[in-house]
Amino acid sequence: MTGRLALNQATTRHLSIEQAVRQCAEAGVRGIGLWREPVSETGADRAARLVRQAGLTVTSLCRGGFLTAASAEGRAAAIADNRRAIEQAAQVGAGVLALVCGGVPAGSRDLRGARDMVADGIAELAGPAADHGISLAIEPLHPMFCADRSVISTAAQALDIAERFGPHIGLMLDVYHVWWDPDIEASIARAGPRILGYQLSDWVLPLPADALLGRGHIGDGCIDFRRLDQAVRAAGYDGWSEVEIFNEAVWAAPAEQTLRTMVERYRLHVIEP
Amino acid sequence: MTGRLALNQATTRHLSIEQAVRQCAEAGVRGIGLWREPVSETGADRAARLVRQAGLTVTSLCRGGFLTAASAEGRAAAIADNRRAIEQAAQVGAGVLALVCGGVPAGSRDLRGARDMVADGIAELAGPAADHGISLAIEPLHPMFCADRSVISTAAQALDIAERFGPHIGLMLDVYHVWWDPDIEASIARAGPRILGYQLSDWVLPLPADALLGRGHIGDGCIDFRRLDQAVRAAGYDGWSEVEIFNEAVWAAPAEQTLRTMVERYRLHVIEP
Repeated sequence: MTGRLALNQATTRHLSIEQAVRQCAEAGVRGIGLWREPVSETGADRAARLVRQAGLTVTSLCRGGFLTAASAEGRAAAIADNRRAIEQAAQVGAGVLALVCGGVPAGSRDLRGARDMVADGIAELAGPAADHGISLAIEPLHPMFCADRSVISTAAQALDIAERFGPHIGLMLDVYHVWWDPDIEASIARAGPRILGYQLSDWVLPLPADALLGRGHIGDGCIDFRRLDQAVRAAGYDGWSEVEIFNEAVWAAPAEQTLRTMVERYRLHVIEP
Repeated sequence: MTGRLALNQATTRHLSIEQAVRQCAEAGVRGIGLWREPVSETGADRAARLVRQAGLTVTSLCRGGFLTAASAEGRAAAIADNRRAIEQAAQVGAGVLALVCGGVPAGSRDLRGARDMVADGIAELAGPAADHGISLAIEPLHPMFCADRSVISTAAQALDIAERFGPHIGLMLDVYHVWWDPDIEASIARAGPRILGYQLSDWVLPLPADALLGRGHIGDGCIDFRRLDQAVRAAGYDGWSEVEIFNEAVWAAPAEQTLRTMVERYRLHVIEP
């Protein structure tokens, strides 16, 4: 039963949306998470049509966020960009926009201030998101990205923000980022219906020179996916499981092979007892 | 007032203990954290004498730990090695042995089991440590090292273990590893007298190919040392501040310059208002 398995298109980043959708259909993968840049290149309407015609669902749009900036102008520009992302999510038929919230502004040491900027930014975006029927999924990123990509490092932090708003503000739970967290199962239980998205890739060693690209196929590393999946399902999440892998070797592999491995590993390490 | 500033000898790793002690004395730095390998090479008695004759204090010994292993034999070997580390700490006059607790055993996905191994190992070592008058400082390591170096990633986790034992089991608070933690100030306050050691280096970007070597001098990165130092002092800690920097460029610099920068930055970014 891989009915809830989806491809995040970053996993096959050299494919066009048209190619990625075809690969998914051939592999029996029925959901796809899209990224803004390829959606813009393809055109949001055409991208939506390609996905729909293949019988697939758009599971999320990556990504908004980057709400921390040293200047008021920078923060205003970020809000404007996120409004465009919300509109694009609506155009492409993604119910969920993932937010990578932004790091500590260059030259700053004010981590707490940066965290406040994220909460303030989401407060500005909650209304526009609701107006477009889009949920905003705050994605805690691994603490190794705290300085430059996301001052939101844990699911608990994301929930502390999300719970100030309606149920359309919640959590993008990317297991790669949170597997180490001693409180992750408590946070998953707390999140319940605020789990808006769910992404999978494995923690493999050694970290590459570019720490962004260290992810592996499910089963290639040390994450206990089954245990976390059980917690996510026990919390009531019945949505998609997106496989999102940033890895030069995976990108160099034939897409058919990547999709086949994805399906096999999901069966073997996540859903089968 | 830099009276509480100490050099961790890893910062000047190409110096012998004799050379490092002389550099400290000349720079007005009155404490030094030692590592086991150079202590073994120098001889623990001679190392202790060199430090004492220069009017310095041994602030810690690095390091014990690595208590997680796939086999019972591996875990027993780790305990034996830690017993030797405790003895060496006593011989060299270090009151504190830092523990880097170990990662997820190779081939395992049982993070929780690995964490239990750490707690079990410390339970075995608490008695021998007390017998030798040595405190064991559990060092939470940044979550990017959870897989391979320390399944103890937060100060709260370290305290959850330490609080099962007497006051000689506590925390090595290395700011590099914990600066991102949204609960760090609460954990510092909770730790109080269980803060057994305190280490400083800055988070600088980009991470190098070897993520171990990404640390910078205080002030070169994005950590707000002053705020954390105030929390540490408010918790009652009046011990040493060890500067511990793993960085190829710092290692390549003349030691006089490294010590001078250390002292200047500590004044500028930590203790002066």
